[in-house]
Amino acid sequence: MNEFLKIVRERRSADKFIKDIVIPKEDFKEIFRDLSLAPSAFNLQHAKYYVVEDKSLMDKVYDASFNQYKIKTASAVIIVTGDKKAYLSADKIYEGSMMLGMLDKTEYQIMINNISSIYESWGESFQHDEAIRNASLSAMLFMLMAKNKDWDTCPMIYFDKDKISNLLNISDNEEPAIMITMGKVDKSSNKIRGYRKPADEFVKYY
Amino acid sequence: MNEFLKIVRERRSADKFIKDIVIPKEDFKEIFRDLSLAPSAFNLQHAKYYVVEDKSLMDKVYDASFNQYKIKTASAVIIVTGDKKAYLSADKIYEGSMMLGMLDKTEYQIMINNISSIYESWGESFQHDEAIRNASLSAMLFMLMAKNKDWDTCPMIYFDKDKISNLLNISDNEEPAIMITMGKVDKSSNKIRGYRKPADEFVKYY
Repeated sequence: MNEFLKIVRERRSADKFIKDIVIPKEDFKEIFRDLSLAPSAFNLQHAKYYVVEDKSLMDKVYDASFNQYKIKTASAVIIVTGDKKAYLSADKIYEGSMMLGMLDKTEYQIMINNISSIYESWGESFQHDEAIRNASLSAMLFMLMAKNKDWDTCPMIYFDKDKISNLLNISDNEEPAIMITMGKVDKSSNKIRGYRKPADEFVKYY
Repeated sequence: MNEFLKIVRERRSADKFIKDIVIPKEDFKEIFRDLSLAPSAFNLQHAKYYVVEDKSLMDKVYDASFNQYKIKTASAVIIVTGDKKAYLSADKIYEGSMMLGMLDKTEYQIMINNISSIYESWGESFQHDEAIRNASLSAMLFMLMAKNKDWDTCPMIYFDKDKISNLLNISDNEEPAIMITMGKVDKSSNKIRGYRKPADEFVKYY
């Protein structure tokens, strides 16, 4: 089995973490450096990460997440949001790409116009969906990258979005898409992996 | 550099594919076998895959996707949907998990009740978001797994959801979340990678 598949197969949603373990800042830095390679629609890089390690703030996150015990044991809780207005910063991204020689001035202008036209004509519901979609693509890569550094994670959705946004001063333009608890799994509570559907129940060929 | 990071770094959204290449069915089977390990909220496995390889159907997908040339050159076009009503099948999933010994009858009943209560009280907008979120988590893993088998992909969002749903007989309960073109990248058209933001523009520590 190659190392890539090993990571994919060994990543499991952690049920409980070993308390009081600190994640080295260098691990986060290396994860985020490669995480920037995640794909996003029109390369708009909608995803933003709020990494909470401060104990008193984590207690508040715990309150805002219906007191899920897992949060009490995690080394960090990460809120991943998607920027609903990411298209408004397309000029900055594509100026960067133009500097790298990826496109010329005319292509730049066409790109900016196309992006603005799609996001504005498809409107707020599309901007909302894009925020969740692109943040989620990124979040999956984050969890695999964490596992590659021997950290365990658990994606979570059962939290009060408004309370979390208030706690972390998240802009109204951002949609909290997913919460990820991270730490070292406590194997004493490790359950077996949940049942998975066979492929013929979720794949159709045409 | 380890093999996992190599896959992450070499995966790039393909701009154009080499025509007339067939993806062996065995590759799809192996990808989907491991893809079932993707995490999903409450393990509901919301994601569904529609793999289109038939040329005349691909022409129709091309029409329903604003004639993006990339589709003409891809070996397969895959529509990933999320099941908005996945929570209604929680009983089947958790019966499977109970058979595997992951939980007992009482825990099973509590789980089924909790899932139903969350999805029903948070309503249709949550069900919609869950469909996109969980399909996107799965889609990111799909693209990495494809790369691990030396296939290139490109995630796409610029398509007419209703037309695609009609073409592929996708149920109204499913939300088309993302389209993925797949094949062998034509390196003659390979542009440099688009500009990526430095981490301090998308990460905050607390």
